[in-house]
Amino acid sequence: MKLEADALDLLFREARSHNAFTDEPVTDNELYQLHAILKQGPTSANCSPARFLFLRTKEAKQKLAPALSSGNHDKTMAAPVTAIIGHDLAFYEQLPRLFPHADARAWFVGNEPLIESTAFRNGTLQGAYFILAARALGLDCGPMSGFDNAKVDAEFFAGTTVKSNFLVNLGYGDPGKLFPRSPRLAADEIARFA
Amino acid sequence: MKLEADALDLLFREARSHNAFTDEPVTDNELYQLHAILKQGPTSANCSPARFLFLRTKEAKQKLAPALSSGNHDKTMAAPVTAIIGHDLAFYEQLPRLFPHADARAWFVGNEPLIESTAFRNGTLQGAYFILAARALGLDCGPMSGFDNAKVDAEFFAGTTVKSNFLVNLGYGDPGKLFPRSPRLAADEIARFA
Repeated sequence: MKLEADALDLLFREARSHNAFTDEPVTDNELYQLHAILKQGPTSANCSPARFLFLRTKEAKQKLAPALSSGNHDKTMAAPVTAIIGHDLAFYEQLPRLFPHADARAWFVGNEPLIESTAFRNGTLQGAYFILAARALGLDCGPMSGFDNAKVDAEFFAGTTVKSNFLVNLGYGDPGKLFPRSPRLAADEIARFA
Repeated sequence: MKLEADALDLLFREARSHNAFTDEPVTDNELYQLHAILKQGPTSANCSPARFLFLRTKEAKQKLAPALSSGNHDKTMAAPVTAIIGHDLAFYEQLPRLFPHADARAWFVGNEPLIESTAFRNGTLQGAYFILAARALGLDCGPMSGFDNAKVDAEFFAGTTVKSNFLVNLGYGDPGKLFPRSPRLAADEIARFA
């Protein structure tokens, strides 16, 4: 089986990062569906380090505001939902449950560089699954890296082992507010055969 | 528009990481189709740092072998294609072309921590797009982090600004060789609302 052309368009070829959204809300049920889909995407040793904080209230958005770059402020305040995509540096404590056929927890204990690279890599993979799962459900995304991670961590994750990675505005995009799509690198610029 | 249930199954819900593949080859045309799809996935400032090296010959696989963890050796030697997912730390030199409406190159020049985190984050996002685009084309993936990145970089990327991130075996999976699916974290363990 392969995806049909219209499904490839929905996920990749015609999908766009959105800066403005309609007033249509994103429901709790949609966010739970999103989780049910993205959680099945692969991570190394099933480590599943991503954590998601969904900001929906004006109060929560205003806590985020001081951390945003100027170009990301207004569109984020206006988005129906802003998701903070983070990862838990204590992810390996869950490995006896998530990867029961080996002592995978022991691979990580005391190895901070491996903990950090594994959390960042796999949390980011799950962030990509989040974006594509949202598109699969008919939602639109506005992913952003332009913010102060340390400020977000202090405001939302103080006293925890969770660190912020990137942000995603979520909602139903307003196609009239899109910029033209930027060019991509050609196949022979990014792929080689050996 | 939303994806139909069978498409969600293909990409996420029934898809599995494969350890063994049939003899059916992966064609050049399939790899070019894979690029044409995954390249449209979003990256910050369209920076598109991922680079892909497709190992298909016995000679290329044997150069990879010394870098693999023991558990990843045999299945990788047997896979029709092994893709090295890497990222180019000089990605920002392409930004005048990829993001022409701002001087985004200047954001990065001389800022090594920002270069490294941006390349790793966005190259990993593109690695996830790679996995899902492959599944969308009917291919199966076996992603792996269990290898020595420094050895792979020395063998395949010496004298370049490309660094390895993770590996993906590609082909048509043999479902008879799958392990049972491991459990996932529940929604309330990884998602919160504010």
